[in-house]
Amino acid sequence: MEKIKVGVLGATGIVGQNYISLLENHPWFEVSYVAASPRSAGKKYSEAVAGRWHINSDIPANVRDLVVGDANNVKEAQGKCKFVFSALELESNLIRDLENEYAKNHIPVVSNASAHRHTPNVPLLIPEINPAHLEIVHAQRYANRSYGFIVVKPNCSLQSYIAPIFALIKAGYPVKKMIITTMQAVSGAGYPGVASFDIIGNVIPFINGEEEKSEKELKKILGRIENGVFVYDESITVSAHCNRVPVLHGHTACISLEFGEKKPGLDEIKKIWTEFRSVPQELNLPFAPSRPIIYREEENRPQPRKDRDADKGMAISVGRLRKCSVLDIKFVTVSHNLIRGAAGGGILNAELLKAKGFFD
Amino acid sequence: MEKIKVGVLGATGIVGQNYISLLENHPWFEVSYVAASPRSAGKKYSEAVAGRWHINSDIPANVRDLVVGDANNVKEAQGKCKFVFSALELESNLIRDLENEYAKNHIPVVSNASAHRHTPNVPLLIPEINPAHLEIVHAQRYANRSYGFIVVKPNCSLQSYIAPIFALIKAGYPVKKMIITTMQAVSGAGYPGVASFDIIGNVIPFINGEEEKSEKELKKILGRIENGVFVYDESITVSAHCNRVPVLHGHTACISLEFGEKKPGLDEIKKIWTEFRSVPQELNLPFAPSRPIIYREEENRPQPRKDRDADKGMAISVGRLRKCSVLDIKFVTVSHNLIRGAAGGGILNAELLKAKGFFD
Amino acid sequence: MEKIKVGVLGATGIVGQNYISLLENHPWFEVSYVAASPRSAGKKYSEAVAGRWHINSDIPANVRDLVVGDANNVKEAQGKCKFVFSALELESNLIRDLENEYAKNHIPVVSNASAHRHTPNVPLLIPEINPAHLEIVHAQRYANRSYGFIVVKPNCSLQSYIAPIFALIKAGYPVKKMIITTMQAVSGAGYPGVASFDIIGNVIPFINGEEEKSEKELKKILGRIENGVFVYDESITVSAHCNRVPVLHGHTACISLEFGEKKPGLDEIKKIWTEFRSVPQELNLPFAPSRPIIYREEENRPQPRKDRDADKGMAISVGRLRKCSVLDIKFVTVSHNLIRGAAGGGILNAELLKAKGFFD
Amino acid sequence: MEKIKVGVLGATGIVGQNYISLLENHPWFEVSYVAASPRSAGKKYSEAVAGRWHINSDIPANVRDLVVGDANNVKEAQGKCKFVFSALELESNLIRDLENEYAKNHIPVVSNASAHRHTPNVPLLIPEINPAHLEIVHAQRYANRSYGFIVVKPNCSLQSYIAPIFALIKAGYPVKKMIITTMQAVSGAGYPGVASFDIIGNVIPFINGEEEKSEKELKKILGRIENGVFVYDESITVSAHCNRVPVLHGHTACISLEFGEKKPGLDEIKKIWTEFRSVPQELNLPFAPSRPIIYREEENRPQPRKDRDADKGMAISVGRLRKCSVLDIKFVTVSHNLIRGAAGGGILNAELLKAKGFFD
Repeated sequence: MEKIKVGVLGATGIVGQNYISLLENHPWFEVSYVAASPRSAGKKYSEAVAGRWHINSDIPANVRDLVVGDANNVKEAQGKCKFVFSALELESNLIRDLENEYAKNHIPVVSNASAHRHTPNVPLLIPEINPAHLEIVHAQRYANRSYGFIVVKPNCSLQSYIAPIFALIKAGYPVKKMIITTMQAVSGAGYPGVASFDIIGNVIPFINGEEEKSEKELKKILGRIENGVFVYDESITVSAHCNRVPVLHGHTACISLEFGEKKPGLDEIKKIWTEFRSVPQELNLPFAPSRPIIYREEENRPQPRKDRDADKGMAISVGRLRKCSVLDIKFVTVSHNLIRGAAGGGILNAELLKAKGFFD
Repeated sequence: MEKIKVGVLGATGIVGQNYISLLENHPWFEVSYVAASPRSAGKKYSEAVAGRWHINSDIPANVRDLVVGDANNVKEAQGKCKFVFSALELESNLIRDLENEYAKNHIPVVSNASAHRHTPNVPLLIPEINPAHLEIVHAQRYANRSYGFIVVKPNCSLQSYIAPIFALIKAGYPVKKMIITTMQAVSGAGYPGVASFDIIGNVIPFINGEEEKSEKELKKILGRIENGVFVYDESITVSAHCNRVPVLHGHTACISLEFGEKKPGLDEIKKIWTEFRSVPQELNLPFAPSRPIIYREEENRPQPRKDRDADKGMAISVGRLRKCSVLDIKFVTVSHNLIRGAAGGGILNAELLKAKGFFD
Repeated sequence: MEKIKVGVLGATGIVGQNYISLLENHPWFEVSYVAASPRSAGKKYSEAVAGRWHINSDIPANVRDLVVGDANNVKEAQGKCKFVFSALELESNLIRDLENEYAKNHIPVVSNASAHRHTPNVPLLIPEINPAHLEIVHAQRYANRSYGFIVVKPNCSLQSYIAPIFALIKAGYPVKKMIITTMQAVSGAGYPGVASFDIIGNVIPFINGEEEKSEKELKKILGRIENGVFVYDESITVSAHCNRVPVLHGHTACISLEFGEKKPGLDEIKKIWTEFRSVPQELNLPFAPSRPIIYREEENRPQPRKDRDADKGMAISVGRLRKCSVLDIKFVTVSHNLIRGAAGGGILNAELLKAKGFFD
Repeated sequence: MEKIKVGVLGATGIVGQNYISLLENHPWFEVSYVAASPRSAGKKYSEAVAGRWHINSDIPANVRDLVVGDANNVKEAQGKCKFVFSALELESNLIRDLENEYAKNHIPVVSNASAHRHTPNVPLLIPEINPAHLEIVHAQRYANRSYGFIVVKPNCSLQSYIAPIFALIKAGYPVKKMIITTMQAVSGAGYPGVASFDIIGNVIPFINGEEEKSEKELKKILGRIENGVFVYDESITVSAHCNRVPVLHGHTACISLEFGEKKPGLDEIKKIWTEFRSVPQELNLPFAPSRPIIYREEENRPQPRKDRDADKGMAISVGRLRKCSVLDIKFVTVSHNLIRGAAGGGILNAELLKAKGFFD
């Protein structure tokens, strides 16, 4: 099978680099186009990232010598790739317009950016949770009169706990209330991101916009499409405390939650999590973790440094399930913010799109 | 005024060292006796801590050459000090017996250990909160037929948020439910405590026994004495998530709470906190912070590294007060676990005892 | 005595903030003027640093409400202060011109910047080492036809080991060769400086320009003035390896050195260091450490976190003196890069200037 | 080919765990026996390491259920394995006797311990450097009247720079003098090893015995066997400064060195390093890195976090080669202390022994 040619927008940033690294040897996709700001445009990729290639393995050989395009110029991408991953780092309104531009010019956009997360006809996709939301892509294509469309993924912090929540809901135990405290890694802030002067031996109990994003995005992901319009799930209320901690990669979340009237026992919950499988597993997508949720019985796990890489960084690790004296249960989750929570999550989205025929 | 001679049990440990350092030049107390395990007994203090003096300033001159006593032998303390601070690091049941032994031998014990926190006639004292609990000391003395008695302080994690909670209750707004997630410093685990191999670039979402302690101690501190017996406050329910983070000193807590029917506005809460004063401030105790609660308006404070030393480590810093969508409000607190949360808190307890005539 | 009014250029940066904080309650100087980039100019100081005040203690009351001047406009400083501290963070050639401008407009400049470190008539001053170099200031004033002049301090890394070297030379033991490996704190890079993504759990074996600076500045500081011209000391050769490590404050250096023909014994060296005193101590300057060099006998000291604050951050801590099998001796030094190595060192320079009548 | 059965002594420690993890799926060896202290003996391996399994991947399935033997009892190993890896963590004299006991009882010992590093007939082996030293194993076997023998590897810090030094010597440029400053990871100290309280945001400029080991072991490794006796290479003099830094894995070294009369140019040195290959590469040993020395041209590399895993942790990364103004050249090296510097190095030793017929 010939591989599908893909582009990466924002290819010189930390998430863009992760895309390029993770796509090396991908069975379905191959990076044929990279684009970044005008400052980098025209240089070889290896020159554009000289001194700031952040991945431990070297730049993939097939990307090293690609000439970087100007991400602002959609024309440059045309003919070079079938779709693009967007890891743009610009102001939100600029990203919104630019991604629209690609979509209107027949280039599908699989995006990491927050700009379109609440755009009415854009799905906020996690393949294990709401693959059916892809139906709205047809409406986008029709509205744009274009082959192009936009699909986005949620913020990285949400990724670390949404699968366990969804697994419980799907098993027949609706969740009504959640209080979440995250301890997020510095790589979630991009590069240069958090100054070492601020975070060495410290905790910063604030991440701009993160709590609001977490609280709102969850409702769209768990929502449904009715008459071609998203209906957010207002039956679940989330309150988030987001903190930055001196961890390189891996977001940790401490969660207390309350069910509706039906309340599962602790053992049943562990069983639900351990047995949880969904569409990506059924379709055997290349980046799908074999077990999306890994429950760890050790009393002091999951930990970001030890568990973030589970199943190549695509699985969510959960542990410490116990009763909560205020709500019903409490537990801890960890996921890799740059893999499952960023580039890996984006690739899984693209794989689902491919499997569902959106790139035919 | 002649200073009161005091002893420090567990003088070679990290908390014991803090006692010795903080008591240098104390206006009321002077360290005249230090005791530790038999291994250290008989050595000069400076020799006993050689290679493991953890305080940045040097060993106080008046303690350097004290000969370390055997903490297991109460007789050695007699005549050398009027009361002792207990920073013993032993198994809980050994500490319980040993502190009893001192108390029965006419040596009051101001303790940091958890052993007696739920002993029926032992007050779990925070001078700003429950100074009236000291009345039960008379019952102890009578029961022991001794001048001695035991007063303990709660665990260090609780210290970082109990004053703000109490200030609200005292102002007429009972608190019913709290969900607390702590991010605790490594120095809270003593020495050598947490292995660097475990915590560098990591979070450990588990501290043995800490969640249970937090949940239970709060009820005693906020409780009342009735007919000579403690009645725990069962009207407040706490659920704690305790985490260890790579921070040297300073415990941070993210708190969501729910009031009873009366719910103060956010501005009123800030006013209550900022104006909160209590017995230690009225008595002008040497270690009393002038403002026990400092509210910070910056959006990213309090932070452990920046706020732990507020008012010489005795004030609690609070910030990020906002609505909680699940309970009523949420906010962040920071306090110094080794000062307010350990030796400094113990010294403040002793100062209150002194001011109330218990050392006359 | 009325205090001398001083200005701080680059007042919003990390070193500028340190000047302002360290000068609070200074017995001789008071900050009456602060200046920064045009972006900050016109704002109150507290507004200009909102969200990026990096000092743990609060902004001094007398500076909070000062209106920030435009550092590029020398006229704004005139009449507001007798001299300025320069903590400018600009490109070197811009700083060079700007500091010249102040000097020519009758405003002496006590600078931290590297721009003028090798300007022929500018002394590279460390009060304990080369106070006599101040004689060249007269030449500057004459050349400028101005009351103004420029005095600079060396880079922060050099500070941590130059005093011990000089003490040996002064005692009659010329040093011929040195190999120095530094492990430097992140605060030496300013703010935001080193990205946490780069340094958490890592070492960066490169600091742009630092090795060259160390090797060259030493020769000027140890040099002499002959016929009004600096003669660099070419009898000493230095080879430096400069590394960045995940330490907040405090530069550590591992040093091997070779003497000329006269070689002191280890005990004699310790004696020389311990007894070393110089002009700042004789003049009893306010920021002078009582013992400029503190030798620590513990086998594992000095350490940056434990020793950087010695004598309020102005003393150099030294330890681990032993034979070197390749050169003659080896040892370890630590100093506080933001105090002795930056603002504190600048203040000591100004104090020496004042004591020597340069501000009369 | 049937795999050779191997045992791991000290299997529950951090290096022992690394052996077990790295040997999973090894093409030649399979772990059939694990032994540790009497405290662990009799338990299943998974129980013996419960709560202290330090490797991110799970315990290999074939080792999980092995019953842990008592390492002090040589008899337990007999018949269970052909040879043992020794990662014992005991006092040196106990290890010396115990390893002798295994060797005398016909069980070859491939050791990480320092106990036998200077035993006259024990080779201190690095396969790329001194494979010929294995000839002395015959003398051991003869002396012991046993199939058993002992081969040891040097300390982990030395590993990070000895290959580049040797490559230069082998190319005809004898090295006369070296000054080395190491910045060593905490995992080099075993578990629990360095207390987080000591190292967070800090540098400890002392590692007990490490400097002496580095200086002495180098001379044996580079030495020769004459008349059945090791002749240490006294033509090279090393002076080491060893520091502990807050890095998890990966030792970094800054090196200045002086050649004899023949001095290669910088480009020639890079060529020598890049082209360096030796016996393990020729024999295509499974753990042999394809390029033992990787030269990095980036100005700020190698870095421990980015380069320690090069070629699965078996390659040495080198960079920043430049002139030294005191000796001849200087540069920086990084290697993985737990892989190349510990278990991986031990496995490579065993592979060489196997290839040379010592396990026939």
